[in-house]
Amino acid sequence: MRFFSDNAAAAHPAVLEAMAAANALDTAYDGDALSRKLDGAFSDLFETEVTALWVTTGTAANCLALAAMVPAYGGILCHREAHINVDEAGAPEFFTGGAKLLLIDGPGAKLSVEAVAEARGRIRADVHQVQPSALSITNASEYGLVYTPDETAALGEFAHTHRLGFHLDGARFANAVASTGASPADLTWRAGVDALSFGFVKNGGLSAEALILFDRELADNVLRRRKRAGHLLSKGRYMAAQLLAMLEDDIWLDNARAANAAATRLAQAAGDRLVHPVEANEVFLRLTPEEAATLRDEEFDFYDWGVGEARMVTSWDQDLAAVDRLAAAIRQL
Amino acid sequence: MRFFSDNAAAAHPAVLEAMAAANALDTAYDGDALSRKLDGAFSDLFETEVTALWVTTGTAANCLALAAMVPAYGGILCHREAHINVDEAGAPEFFTGGAKLLLIDGPGAKLSVEAVAEARGRIRADVHQVQPSALSITNASEYGLVYTPDETAALGEFAHTHRLGFHLDGARFANAVASTGASPADLTWRAGVDALSFGFVKNGGLSAEALILFDRELADNVLRRRKRAGHLLSKGRYMAAQLLAMLEDDIWLDNARAANAAATRLAQAAGDRLVHPVEANEVFLRLTPEEAATLRDEEFDFYDWGVGEARMVTSWDQDLAAVDRLAAAIRQL
Amino acid sequence: MRFFSDNAAAAHPAVLEAMAAANALDTAYDGDALSRKLDGAFSDLFETEVTALWVTTGTAANCLALAAMVPAYGGILCHREAHINVDEAGAPEFFTGGAKLLLIDGPGAKLSVEAVAEARGRIRADVHQVQPSALSITNASEYGLVYTPDETAALGEFAHTHRLGFHLDGARFANAVASTGASPADLTWRAGVDALSFGFVKNGGLSAEALILFDRELADNVLRRRKRAGHLLSKGRYMAAQLLAMLEDDIWLDNARAANAAATRLAQAAGDRLVHPVEANEVFLRLTPEEAATLRDEEFDFYDWGVGEARMVTSWDQDLAAVDRLAAAIRQL
Amino acid sequence: MRFFSDNAAAAHPAVLEAMAAANALDTAYDGDALSRKLDGAFSDLFETEVTALWVTTGTAANCLALAAMVPAYGGILCHREAHINVDEAGAPEFFTGGAKLLLIDGPGAKLSVEAVAEARGRIRADVHQVQPSALSITNASEYGLVYTPDETAALGEFAHTHRLGFHLDGARFANAVASTGASPADLTWRAGVDALSFGFVKNGGLSAEALILFDRELADNVLRRRKRAGHLLSKGRYMAAQLLAMLEDDIWLDNARAANAAATRLAQAAGDRLVHPVEANEVFLRLTPEEAATLRDEEFDFYDWGVGEARMVTSWDQDLAAVDRLAAAIRQL
Repeated sequence: MRFFSDNAAAAHPAVLEAMAAANALDTAYDGDALSRKLDGAFSDLFETEVTALWVTTGTAANCLALAAMVPAYGGILCHREAHINVDEAGAPEFFTGGAKLLLIDGPGAKLSVEAVAEARGRIRADVHQVQPSALSITNASEYGLVYTPDETAALGEFAHTHRLGFHLDGARFANAVASTGASPADLTWRAGVDALSFGFVKNGGLSAEALILFDRELADNVLRRRKRAGHLLSKGRYMAAQLLAMLEDDIWLDNARAANAAATRLAQAAGDRLVHPVEANEVFLRLTPEEAATLRDEEFDFYDWGVGEARMVTSWDQDLAAVDRLAAAIRQL
Repeated sequence: MRFFSDNAAAAHPAVLEAMAAANALDTAYDGDALSRKLDGAFSDLFETEVTALWVTTGTAANCLALAAMVPAYGGILCHREAHINVDEAGAPEFFTGGAKLLLIDGPGAKLSVEAVAEARGRIRADVHQVQPSALSITNASEYGLVYTPDETAALGEFAHTHRLGFHLDGARFANAVASTGASPADLTWRAGVDALSFGFVKNGGLSAEALILFDRELADNVLRRRKRAGHLLSKGRYMAAQLLAMLEDDIWLDNARAANAAATRLAQAAGDRLVHPVEANEVFLRLTPEEAATLRDEEFDFYDWGVGEARMVTSWDQDLAAVDRLAAAIRQL
Repeated sequence: MRFFSDNAAAAHPAVLEAMAAANALDTAYDGDALSRKLDGAFSDLFETEVTALWVTTGTAANCLALAAMVPAYGGILCHREAHINVDEAGAPEFFTGGAKLLLIDGPGAKLSVEAVAEARGRIRADVHQVQPSALSITNASEYGLVYTPDETAALGEFAHTHRLGFHLDGARFANAVASTGASPADLTWRAGVDALSFGFVKNGGLSAEALILFDRELADNVLRRRKRAGHLLSKGRYMAAQLLAMLEDDIWLDNARAANAAATRLAQAAGDRLVHPVEANEVFLRLTPEEAATLRDEEFDFYDWGVGEARMVTSWDQDLAAVDRLAAAIRQL
Repeated sequence: MRFFSDNAAAAHPAVLEAMAAANALDTAYDGDALSRKLDGAFSDLFETEVTALWVTTGTAANCLALAAMVPAYGGILCHREAHINVDEAGAPEFFTGGAKLLLIDGPGAKLSVEAVAEARGRIRADVHQVQPSALSITNASEYGLVYTPDETAALGEFAHTHRLGFHLDGARFANAVASTGASPADLTWRAGVDALSFGFVKNGGLSAEALILFDRELADNVLRRRKRAGHLLSKGRYMAAQLLAMLEDDIWLDNARAANAAATRLAQAAGDRLVHPVEANEVFLRLTPEEAATLRDEEFDFYDWGVGEARMVTSWDQDLAAVDRLAAAIRQL
């Protein structure tokens, strides 16, 4: 019974069906009929005109967007525990040509306007220090917290006041939408977001993430960089098919709700063991090594998260019986 | 009836079946059971121990290999019409951190040892000029010509004598194997090749190419660069499944033979219209604009290739009746 | 008697005097009194408001300017024999983050509008090919030919029509001004030039070149890149002092006239041995190996330039008696 | 009376004399007689065979060395307040092609083995996290503290045990030698240092720093990168002349002793106002805004260093009467 990562779950059947249905000759790259539907489908979802691209990883989505916003000599304000800083192997530096991540602290891997302003304020404007050109946040955050529309909008206002591009790493954006009940628009462009890495793979997709450009002037830059980074697949229709299938009938939202609900059950069991409030599909809780061993003896798999803590992640297809068994086992510790 | 590109063809049914069969939870990235079989499966095929990785594009495969061979201040000897120079949007420069392509001419986009030696000989060894660190060839070439094992080995010997890494862009390597009848081993490591971009997508795959490292010391470097370039997909099992399905029962080789055979029929019809001998699955032929228009009126689609020439590419699933109709139409011009 | 390179000549006494006069405490980097005079001094010379920076090499000047004009995924149209392509060790690729030099042929290392248009016309606008973002020429060219104001303006018009930045490598710009008799303004911004690498080191300077930005919007970008490339010296006053000394009393122009005059004497002696017309301070002439050996036996030093050709370069302080002896020796061959 | 920065001081007369003496034609770049003496002169000083290059800035010296040690996908362990992190405008990221600075805390901008080990220990070895390839320290540190030979050797041993290159930013290395009384050898290669940025400009030089490679296998890499970064000056003899002049009669050491002595006088006056012990030529002290204003009213110039602190730096040519006046003024506060 694995609670390792939503990355490892199976793909939703509708995704595979859509890929099979796409299995006929069509124009290569992103000239096919399905890829050409993406702008429209996501514009509908976001209630504004967007440019939408498929890419195969969140790392690529994040870094293509950031590279289009930030000159090689610029910087990116982000949380010290942001995925782009901790788990992307230097990809932001690679895609941007060496821009610098300017790290900020804050509880639960969330940034406040105050913390961002303080960090920015410490930077001298002279040529000896790297100047920030973008702000990047993650919603839901790396610790499973969500930004509300108001929180996002406050950061967006700060960003635009200071001429910073505003990027949202939405590897678990669907979970944030499900959690807040806010509209996709309110969590993004209405709050000043210029580009969103909209994650599908952790949420029932197979290999397609979406990069949504609300600032459509970034499009030419991003499209050229996607090719240059080897991310323009020959047969794009199988990528577009996945995204369109997930949008159809709101599968993306149902899946996120299911994952969040499973995490909520675990959270209720964990009680004051919780390190962070559970607002999406990740549960961080305090477990002694002995307690962790006890759970593992019962065949629950999860990551240790430093000493005395553990991370459990729920997926769109998490078996609820297993969730209940884990919840019970946590209560019994 | 499309003769545009093998890039646009459907995927082989076995590929889709294998992906569907892989649709269960497994370890993320390339830690899954299928990805872990790749080294073994390709080692069997190549009759030596190799490291084999999935990547989603030939551009990524080419450029990851080159980046592992060439320092940022180095150069890559290649043909002026090489895909890496003409159609990868500067990806080699991006992945290597700015290495320089050192361009060489030769008929049919093939390189001879003499031409390579001449180009290398013109470069002063001082610090003012970029020194070559690798040699890259394409087999089958961008004009559909193949290198024999002997031709490859002569280049390989030159490369190693001059301390150059030897990279083979095998977007249509299967077609070269089918055409020459040589073993995969004889066309690669026995001829000195250090790394092969082994193309599957043009040959019935869906989204998986293989990067084969005969020089296994490149592996750590390549694996880290793959992640850093955003090319380490979360659910690698769907990638590995494609490659393993194509290797099973030699589908890869049968597909290439079928595509080559279709091209051969067109070549016979084209006769002395041919610009290059047809040795794989591409046919370059002379057509006046009027002749091209005539064929298009009969609903044959293909690319113009400069003025007075056209390119026709055949696929693994090319409808033979359509091929015969096109052959007949060419004869009637 | 050395006719190797103007790079190797001594510095003009006024340059050393100005540096000695600057030898007192002042603000570091480019905040000193002398550095702050550069904009004004060069604005006077060019009859328009410019931003002027010191840098230590022509390579740095060229590449800082190009990096400010060209995105990492862009290209630079230039002559195949341009210094930036042949003798800068990949510096343009480094500074730009991997942009591609798009090479064009033409006699005497000069570009015509026709040749540039033809090269640009061959590039497809799709994302698979690198799009040009700048045009770079060298005046005087690598073979000692000059562009007139009209020739420059024709290229400038082409550049701006096609949204290309226009860069002028003026390692020997002084020689071009001396040769054409045109004003610095007519050879640059009035002809559409956005940025000029204005060489002083080959012309009597010690270690200071000037980068002149006619498009002043490039300034912030260039100033940040200069620091980031390690080119912002701590004690900038010694750099500015050199440039100001060379501008004073038109030393720069007198020096260039002297070098040109010496080359003209050699050209007259060389007659139909000349490979290129001599319009600045470089003489390319046909010499058999035996003839070259004869001259060297008489203690004339110069470079072979391929088989059967030689390059002789004259400097601002070339001893005229030695020039006359070499001229006589050439006549006697 | 300026106590801003040793960067702003005049050059030592011997430096200017040596440059004037070098003012004759010689081979360009670093082929001249003086540049060719550098290896020998520095090998004598360091009691081992080294490769020694001139460069114009400490930033260039630091970053060329680091780029030769660290792949683009690698990391550099360094102090959070290291000059390479704080004041080089992203130059390490630029020269390395995007390597990541992995930041470590410690008092006085010094690193301990424990802190380095702890930081390294937190990094997972998988491909998702950037692996360190080098360790960089600054001696004297950014807060004017020195590493002893033993402290350096402990870090050197750690570095080599963990296959890290070991770089020493010695912008004020002379001050560290003067302060510790240790030999240059004991503070560098005998302690495991692979490359040293040996600062001269803050210590009486004009525009030449030395990059000393104890690991001579780095030499080809560094020499090619120096050219590629536009740092290979045409007339290198004026650079080499400066370094040789500073080595002659130990001017470099006398200058550092003088600067240190001046700082010591200020330290004695500052007493328990000191934020850090004064071990080289920098004094950090607590001053209220009113106190700082008082000193400035008496025409002492210095930097505020955050709120309530100030930085005073002494130079090789600091006027001792002014130092004593400042010391008295501090005592009177």
